[in-house]
Amino acid sequence: MTKPSQYKVIGTRPIRHDGVDKVTGRAVYGADVQLPGLVHGKMLRSSHAHARIKSIDTTSAEKLPGVFAVVTGADLPCLAGKMANLGEGAINLAHLSQNCLADTKVLYKGHAVAAVAAISPHVAEEAVKLIRVEYEPLPPVMELLAAMQPDAQLLHDDVFTNRLGEKSARPSNVSQHIHLEQGEVDQAFAKADLVIEREFRTASVHQGYIEPHVSIAFWNADGHVTIWTSTQGAFTVRQQTAELFEIPVSRITVIPTEIGGGFGGKIPVYLEPVAAALSRKCGRPVKMTMQRDEDFQGTGPTPGSVVRVKLGATQDGKLVAGQAWLAYDAGAFPGGMIGPGCMCVFSCYEIPNARVDGFDVLCNKPKTAAYRAPGATQAAFACESVIDELAEKLGIDPIDFRLKNAAKEGTRRPDGEVYRRIGIIETLQAVKQSEHYRSKTSGPNVGRGVAAGFWFNVGLKSSAAANVNNDGTVTLIEGSTDIGGTRTSVAMQLAETLGIAAEDVQPHVGDTDSVGYTDVTGGSRVTNATGKAAYQVGLDIKQQMAARAAIVFECKPEQVAVEGGVYRHQGQALTFKELAGKLPHIGEPVVGRATVDAGGATNGFGVHVVDLDVDRETGKVTILRYTAAQDVGTAIHPSYVEGQMQGGAVQGIGWALNEEYVFNERGEMLNASFLDYRMPTALDVPMIETMIVEVPNPEHPYGVRGVGETPIVPPPAALANAIYRATGVRMRELPMSPPKLWKAISRSAPPA
Amino acid sequence: MTKPSQYKVIGTRPIRHDGVDKVTGRAVYGADVQLPGLVHGKMLRSSHAHARIKSIDTTSAEKLPGVFAVVTGADLPCLAGKMANLGEGAINLAHLSQNCLADTKVLYKGHAVAAVAAISPHVAEEAVKLIRVEYEPLPPVMELLAAMQPDAQLLHDDVFTNRLGEKSARPSNVSQHIHLEQGEVDQAFAKADLVIEREFRTASVHQGYIEPHVSIAFWNADGHVTIWTSTQGAFTVRQQTAELFEIPVSRITVIPTEIGGGFGGKIPVYLEPVAAALSRKCGRPVKMTMQRDEDFQGTGPTPGSVVRVKLGATQDGKLVAGQAWLAYDAGAFPGGMIGPGCMCVFSCYEIPNARVDGFDVLCNKPKTAAYRAPGATQAAFACESVIDELAEKLGIDPIDFRLKNAAKEGTRRPDGEVYRRIGIIETLQAVKQSEHYRSKTSGPNVGRGVAAGFWFNVGLKSSAAANVNNDGTVTLIEGSTDIGGTRTSVAMQLAETLGIAAEDVQPHVGDTDSVGYTDVTGGSRVTNATGKAAYQVGLDIKQQMAARAAIVFECKPEQVAVEGGVYRHQGQALTFKELAGKLPHIGEPVVGRATVDAGGATNGFGVHVVDLDVDRETGKVTILRYTAAQDVGTAIHPSYVEGQMQGGAVQGIGWALNEEYVFNERGEMLNASFLDYRMPTALDVPMIETMIVEVPNPEHPYGVRGVGETPIVPPPAALANAIYRATGVRMRELPMSPPKLWKAISRSAPPA
Repeated sequence: MTKPSQYKVIGTRPIRHDGVDKVTGRAVYGADVQLPGLVHGKMLRSSHAHARIKSIDTTSAEKLPGVFAVVTGADLPCLAGKMANLGEGAINLAHLSQNCLADTKVLYKGHAVAAVAAISPHVAEEAVKLIRVEYEPLPPVMELLAAMQPDAQLLHDDVFTNRLGEKSARPSNVSQHIHLEQGEVDQAFAKADLVIEREFRTASVHQGYIEPHVSIAFWNADGHVTIWTSTQGAFTVRQQTAELFEIPVSRITVIPTEIGGGFGGKIPVYLEPVAAALSRKCGRPVKMTMQRDEDFQGTGPTPGSVVRVKLGATQDGKLVAGQAWLAYDAGAFPGGMIGPGCMCVFSCYEIPNARVDGFDVLCNKPKTAAYRAPGATQAAFACESVIDELAEKLGIDPIDFRLKNAAKEGTRRPDGEVYRRIGIIETLQAVKQSEHYRSKTSGPNVGRGVAAGFWFNVGLKSSAAANVNNDGTVTLIEGSTDIGGTRTSVAMQLAETLGIAAEDVQPHVGDTDSVGYTDVTGGSRVTNATGKAAYQVGLDIKQQMAARAAIVFECKPEQVAVEGGVYRHQGQALTFKELAGKLPHIGEPVVGRATVDAGGATNGFGVHVVDLDVDRETGKVTILRYTAAQDVGTAIHPSYVEGQMQGGAVQGIGWALNEEYVFNERGEMLNASFLDYRMPTALDVPMIETMIVEVPNPEHPYGVRGVGETPIVPPPAALANAIYRATGVRMRELPMSPPKLWKAISRSAPPA
Repeated sequence: MTKPSQYKVIGTRPIRHDGVDKVTGRAVYGADVQLPGLVHGKMLRSSHAHARIKSIDTTSAEKLPGVFAVVTGADLPCLAGKMANLGEGAINLAHLSQNCLADTKVLYKGHAVAAVAAISPHVAEEAVKLIRVEYEPLPPVMELLAAMQPDAQLLHDDVFTNRLGEKSARPSNVSQHIHLEQGEVDQAFAKADLVIEREFRTASVHQGYIEPHVSIAFWNADGHVTIWTSTQGAFTVRQQTAELFEIPVSRITVIPTEIGGGFGGKIPVYLEPVAAALSRKCGRPVKMTMQRDEDFQGTGPTPGSVVRVKLGATQDGKLVAGQAWLAYDAGAFPGGMIGPGCMCVFSCYEIPNARVDGFDVLCNKPKTAAYRAPGATQAAFACESVIDELAEKLGIDPIDFRLKNAAKEGTRRPDGEVYRRIGIIETLQAVKQSEHYRSKTSGPNVGRGVAAGFWFNVGLKSSAAANVNNDGTVTLIEGSTDIGGTRTSVAMQLAETLGIAAEDVQPHVGDTDSVGYTDVTGGSRVTNATGKAAYQVGLDIKQQMAARAAIVFECKPEQVAVEGGVYRHQGQALTFKELAGKLPHIGEPVVGRATVDAGGATNGFGVHVVDLDVDRETGKVTILRYTAAQDVGTAIHPSYVEGQMQGGAVQGIGWALNEEYVFNERGEMLNASFLDYRMPTALDVPMIETMIVEVPNPEHPYGVRGVGETPIVPPPAALANAIYRATGVRMRELPMSPPKLWKAISRSAPPA
């Protein structure tokens, strides 16, 4: 492994390749796509949180002048019982289809029921109002623990509890029960000097990407479907849409536009199949754009949760036993985030005896979707709060307590994963030695909190290709949609490999027809896996360039030495640029390509420290100072790494302090706008300080681990721990919003 | 070499992949491109054929409301004396620049002088009228032989005659004198039994593509230029534009749109640099679309010519000596088509003693551009007319005479080329045995003519890549813009290689950022060279697929046998589609890529036979029957091959009978519209019969030679020879239009 400091491009901070287009407004987002003959689609959404659909009458809507097509669930194939693996495990295709357009039931307020394509969005809105739906309302199931009861109102009669691969006898709102166990848990608890068990709750929160969902679909006369969409994964949209229409993937081309944020929420299809169905009916391209309330009510938030964590430790601060019980709401269809929740709950620590039970629970909320380290934040809020309480009760510094118990190479998790080289210890040590942590806090209502967080980061499949231009630059085509700057972080790895400047690689994101298969931009995998593909593209090009140099040098290719982008043989030397300039005269063009299956987890750990002040009279928390430290493997472009750490921390802060879906008793969301759903703004947080720790991933040529998700994991626990130090109150429910915190403070110390 | 009949895909006639889009009007041509903030450019063109520009005043135009930018030649870099190789030999960049926007002189009526970008095309037109240009008129030089005189008015003072690499002492309108010679020419003529020498003239004719030139350019704030354009070569436009602005090629992205015909006329840049200069000034994308009169007067026709051919034969019909003198007008700037004219004039025959002199001559017409086998038709008109006269005088059937003298493997041409395996003899024999040729003509004014024709066809560089989808289809990305169906002919070669159906390959033409360097679509090279790249892509994919099959079969990759798209090992077998379906579970995605430098000529020969009827009272020719035979190597998609042969024949017929630039004494074209410039329509010609002869090219994996250009070469001579048989009149000037033919007939047989 080359040490980071030996790199020429990696670790520098070049201007992003797409910067000018983003800053000047030239970048093409979904809403910018215009096509000849384009018509506009609008969705009719359920006003009930739970109801049977008795009939849908679209006659009046169809007759409205300017209307081209109306579709309902009946326009999608019946997929009852069909399963498919769409890259995130097998899913029930009927459920995916029903989430795009309801079938016989609506399962949440805002559930799509029908859609209209018309000459303008306004006509489409008018037509939507003319669709008559007869509903038979059912009691909404909104509360997680109630939903789990055997006698609860059921959402589906085809969902059974899956426990270790076995199906329950009767239908249930619990679609999955995960059980993990290692060691002798009960015996270990019995022997522990100190055991603490607590219950925690978190609310549903939304990804809150700034750009609403938008898709344009054109179903051509030859049956070929072209989709322009704001997505994290063009190939994922292609696969999902193909499955929903039961057509081969090659009949679909997905052109990913620029994306105004995703955070996991732009992986499932919502509009794409509906726009395609409308287009098939009317023969024109159809554009559908969500309003913000549709994004809140019709697309996936992250699960609300109830988590119970019990930890046992020895007097000298060694964790000996752990037990976690996690119930996450999946929303209206199975397949929530309970799996990663179970995997992550104890992942920062070496706990030889541990048991984890996790439950995926249906309720009448929008189907949940991934949100930055999906499932990990809820689990960490619980675990890291109990860790903090243990440390406090044992009189051990919270960092030292974590250092005593930190996972390391060889540590085995309850799910069976055994870590290779990881960097949580280095990250904890970095925080311990930091100026922030060594500084003192002061003030009566000021407290400091610490929490660790983990995300596994994935590998998966990526493709890349690159063409050498005769001016010495290289054009890179990659299949990964760029949410957080990966065009640049991937290009930099190709530049490093070729020994050229970052600016001399021009990265482009291809559509599904112009680049090899590439998995979704998610799991913090792109800089790792697509970066690895870029590295291999570089090796491929280097080999070809050496062969061309051999023609110039009149020697054998294997006699050409390549170092730092210079090709040499016996006193002759050519830079990459010089050699590229000769290409037109020495044979065929030079094109490199690579495909990778980057495999499993790269395991990223973060430790956050927060100083905050609590206004006891209002319950409002003011963050005074915040530091996020993280082992990122190798920081390819440190500014982007810092940006990811800052962005994740701020999202975690929003989740911790303010964000939540507020429902009334009918299951209607009451705050489906950015005015009422309180996300933090720049005025709400100080500049987030960052500490990049680099423990290179031994399985990546440049040591990359992935960065983007881990930083959302520690904030709620860090803030809760800091609030305790400031107020003496342990908050165990998110959000720790002013009314709730004020109430808790008041309860703990009633006004004199 | 596999025999054509052994192919499964090659030689079949699948529906073209782009058919539905073309038929339904969905295909995106340049005129369809719309962009946010788009403004419209219009050109001010010279009203003089030859004048010095004393001043240009753009003040009033700039002040017109709605005008965003005005540019003149001063907005392009001064490139005096700079040369560059743009794929068709070294050219003077100052000339290329001056042809896009005049510098100190205008050199033809319609020469671009200035351009305006405005909010609408109408405002731009108004603004163009407000530009004041002060001209000092000069005498126009329109006649080829006069232009060659030492005392002729000069177009340029920096053009000297280049003869065998040596520059003349004084400037001249003759920019090049080519001299080729082999054997003992004068002695051979002296010994010949029969010598005939004749002079021929042809008029300037235009490519007449149906879609006028159109380009959109956007010069971004970061200096990156994006160009959408109707072009035969995206990389060629990129290179030319880069040279004109003196910027690296990587700062330009060229996105080729669908193209409504090119025939060689869409290789040079005309609008691209002007639109780019306007965009640089105003910061908006600028669209420029030519009107038909601009295409005629501002873009390259093919050269008018004077050609003298002298041939000597023995009494028994053996050619012993040949001499040709060719003068082609280049138009306003050097670099006409004289090179290929000299190369092609005697290329059908074995003439051991031959001398060729060719002259590239400047005159005040639009700069000529390539037009389907550029330069060959003029030469063949002369040579094939003399051949016919020799055969007639010697009393030998014209096919037999050609068979006696036909070139074959080993024949050496005056330019030094020695043929490898070629197919003119097979083509002549096919015609000789054809029902058409064996049929009798009847009628007093009916005649049959025969002529042969040759085009060398080029190889050059191509890149291609392909991605395997898990539904068993393959997406192909190629760099060759598709004028005549090459998406399909290239895709078929990949399908053949992989053993899958043509429909299972989906071809796409990439832009300059998304595919490796690929030379222009010209020289009948794409099905050959890009097809070869597709074949190599197929081999690359096959190898990877075999390795995946080995994983399934649990054997070594080299133990997997692949035949006809089936992968086998010891009784186990997987079709390509089955194996593709397993790819998600057995490693990284499969992507193939190849780049080729397909090298030199593949040498295509055609023989045409025409039966026609001459109306002696009007001079109007009616074509009764027409057969085009050609050695195409291997016909990948026979329908396309036939279409190319038919299209070329019809263009040759138009050139022969009607098409010409008509100039007045001031050098003004009088017929710059499709109403007045008489191109043949479907009503003017019978269905052209075709005979595909297949003598596979030994240097191509599937034997491809290239097809598109050869068929335009024989028609004028075939028609002239037929007119002679019908009327006794030898026409030696094109077009053989009714007035000229009537006059010639009248002269030969004055009315009683």
